[in-house]
Amino acid sequence: MNIENISANKSFNGWHKQYSHSSETLKCTMRFAIFLPPQASNDNKVPVLYWLSGLTCSDENFMQKSGALRIAAELGIAIVAPDTSPRGNNVADDKSYDLGQGAGFYVNATQAPWNHHYQMYDYVISELPKLVESMFPVNQKRAIAGHSMGGHGALIIALRNPERYRSVSAFSPISNPINCPWGKKAFTAYLGSDQTTWEKYDASKLLSHTTRFVPTRVDQGEADEFLAEQLQTGALESAAKGSGFPLELNYHNGYDHSYYFVASFIEAHLHFHANHLK
Amino acid sequence: MNIENISANKSFNGWHKQYSHSSETLKCTMRFAIFLPPQASNDNKVPVLYWLSGLTCSDENFMQKSGALRIAAELGIAIVAPDTSPRGNNVADDKSYDLGQGAGFYVNATQAPWNHHYQMYDYVISELPKLVESMFPVNQKRAIAGHSMGGHGALIIALRNPERYRSVSAFSPISNPINCPWGKKAFTAYLGSDQTTWEKYDASKLLSHTTRFVPTRVDQGEADEFLAEQLQTGALESAAKGSGFPLELNYHNGYDHSYYFVASFIEAHLHFHANHLK
Repeated sequence: MNIENISANKSFNGWHKQYSHSSETLKCTMRFAIFLPPQASNDNKVPVLYWLSGLTCSDENFMQKSGALRIAAELGIAIVAPDTSPRGNNVADDKSYDLGQGAGFYVNATQAPWNHHYQMYDYVISELPKLVESMFPVNQKRAIAGHSMGGHGALIIALRNPERYRSVSAFSPISNPINCPWGKKAFTAYLGSDQTTWEKYDASKLLSHTTRFVPTRVDQGEADEFLAEQLQTGALESAAKGSGFPLELNYHNGYDHSYYFVASFIEAHLHFHANHLK
Repeated sequence: MNIENISANKSFNGWHKQYSHSSETLKCTMRFAIFLPPQASNDNKVPVLYWLSGLTCSDENFMQKSGALRIAAELGIAIVAPDTSPRGNNVADDKSYDLGQGAGFYVNATQAPWNHHYQMYDYVISELPKLVESMFPVNQKRAIAGHSMGGHGALIIALRNPERYRSVSAFSPISNPINCPWGKKAFTAYLGSDQTTWEKYDASKLLSHTTRFVPTRVDQGEADEFLAEQLQTGALESAAKGSGFPLELNYHNGYDHSYYFVASFIEAHLHFHANHLK
């Protein structure tokens, strides 16, 4: 297997490590980070929380800024953070921050030039867990979470694959991408102008008619500068009410879109997942 | 007063804010960050921990990466993080990362071209606390801490001014700068070639003959890539033994120089300071 360890930092008596590997799905070299808690060993395989980051992020933001490692070390949960898109000089890109590299939106692109590399949905669901579960002392109990674009990714991935994930949580997700500027721009480029192909990547659409349940928690800051135009958490709330989906949605007065918000509530998210990963 | 609020993020029910102000001491516009815990109010002024960062850092690294805000919010301690040097197009600089902007070393420079702006010792001891104590709901109970170059800064500042600080702590400090490459390069530039002028900025020298006690804690990773050549924690330990200074020095197997180490032990440091800030 073509995989290389590129960094290792002891933290909270566990290990944060970064790897690069040659991805078959994305047809480029990808980087991901893993935190292995001190409990993890070949005799004691631990569950994994997959974390999907937001626009412009890499595998590093969550590991450095969320404060999650402390709690994961207590609870005995591994964390895996992939990058947010395929990367490289040969990978299609756009000069804007919300399309191309750093902005994969966790979809499988169907349109040129994006479709050759931009298959983040398949990468996150299939190739990455397969790799992680073959290399590290982890079991197949998986949860998934994310922030902003990554919150969108976590929700659509879990809602469409409830057999693969015990639980899902999101901070400030792009809840209704088919109806917001970030989503419309990205989905037009990656998926084309036929909007019926967009709906399977829209958490609010999926929640409005799902019959399969996965424990779902969402936290949203009320002072989030992107809430009204881009995130539209209200659409998710309405969809859940309409379909009777038991969404746990928490609004927080005064909190914005930053990692200062994520850090404030990540402990609650990790305990939420720990309850379902037992 | 010429001061401007440039950001505000709610975090752990307190507030992280960044300010820019016109510094008389440094003769340039400076930025600092403050975390005000939820307990802080005009009727309940809280103590302040000053945090000094390392080479290449700004006011942001500690606030984003250390996980300290959670604990400061619990303990009711404000945190103030200054930048690591004067900044600006008119401020002397050097193309290397370990001299000039981002590398002020918390000294008062005496040599041109540095002496016009590089007066970080005075800024941290005097101008910054005066500003903070006039603007925010904080009292005059102060502690100081830092990492690497900032650990050096915290130690020399507290050891020379025990009347101003209740306690001091350092992660991976440059413990004996007069004898290491980083220190020799910076002190030669800022202070000139007469090494007798360097000793008042050397924690090991100060500890070897101090008669004034301030509670002092140092934590050092044993896998720190800078330990042998640059940090020389052993010199600090020897100096403390020689003078009978009750230094609390903790070595940690496997930990490196990164914020993954700082984050792992910041809770213990904040509790150490809280005990002395009561």
